[in-house]
Amino acid sequence: MELLKDRIRKDGKIRGTEVLKVDSFLNHQMDVDLFDAIGAEFKRRFADCEINKILTIEASGIGIACLAARHFHCPVVFAKKSQSRNISNDVYTAKVESFTHGKVYDVVVSKEYLNPGDKILLIDDFLANGEALRGLAKLVSDSGAQLVGAGIVIEKAFQPGGDNLRAEGMRVESLARVSAMSETDGITFVD
Amino acid sequence: MELLKDRIRKDGKIRGTEVLKVDSFLNHQMDVDLFDAIGAEFKRRFADCEINKILTIEASGIGIACLAARHFHCPVVFAKKSQSRNISNDVYTAKVESFTHGKVYDVVVSKEYLNPGDKILLIDDFLANGEALRGLAKLVSDSGAQLVGAGIVIEKAFQPGGDNLRAEGMRVESLARVSAMSETDGITFVD
Repeated sequence: MELLKDRIRKDGKIRGTEVLKVDSFLNHQMDVDLFDAIGAEFKRRFADCEINKILTIEASGIGIACLAARHFHCPVVFAKKSQSRNISNDVYTAKVESFTHGKVYDVVVSKEYLNPGDKILLIDDFLANGEALRGLAKLVSDSGAQLVGAGIVIEKAFQPGGDNLRAEGMRVESLARVSAMSETDGITFVD
Repeated sequence: MELLKDRIRKDGKIRGTEVLKVDSFLNHQMDVDLFDAIGAEFKRRFADCEINKILTIEASGIGIACLAARHFHCPVVFAKKSQSRNISNDVYTAKVESFTHGKVYDVVVSKEYLNPGDKILLIDDFLANGEALRGLAKLVSDSGAQLVGAGIVIEKAFQPGGDNLRAEGMRVESLARVSAMSETDGITFVD
């Protein structure tokens, strides 16, 4: 998606070879017109999939998922991050290890909102090691719903998450796939 | 806003006299078409205010704020909740006491995204004791930006937050103001 890649080149800030800060338009300040265009592109890619629900994870996935949902005419469910020891019986739960923050947390979704017969699209802002997507996919699987695929805004294609998930059979559509980055040479996209 | 009140009557679940669960359409599963109508109503109420930025707080304010922002044609910034002891110098910060969860946390926003000259609308899903709004207002004040007001989806008008904030001069627009509720008698709105 050229509009997105141009924006990353213009406003993304590279720190070392692994950190890409897109705080100014994606995950702290949010450019909602860009999100709308991203949502339209997800709809174009998953047009034929009869998606009836979008599942994302708090917090930075929510805005993108909500703008995308307008194009799919469906509700959004967001998984909540929980570090509490007591998980109730009325939720689906999965453990996710965050490489960014170096800790393990549970993601939970009320059983009321994922059901057999649902066709679910996962949406998130970043894909790196794929832990968050894997956790969301487990919630879908546990519910008996059908996982259609995942729509990702920025994939760090130099990390293994995307390729591993595709090899396992998940349809992953990433709108910008970063193959390499450095503070001196800037950012390179796949293709 | 009648559409919203009707939805609360239909799908809200009352627990005791203080807890209103609206998980099925507002803050876990999210009805994005309803959010769009809510956003249009916020725009109608704040039409003349030249708002150039919406500030909300993670996680459940984000979806509403993003749909509202489409009507204001402005970006959204979301304040992050932090329990870390180390707050860096490049953020504005405020302490918020959560009555629901019984703990104090910091809310932080990068100094890059709130600036003198900004005209800020706060948006959140619930207003009860007003602690979250008060924290957001402090972030705006510390930045030198102008606080235009606050748009709230559901105000628990039987708790003091809304009246206190109005008495202090904040313009608070709540789309549904609950005056009382009980499991036997249901929900009553102001007006």
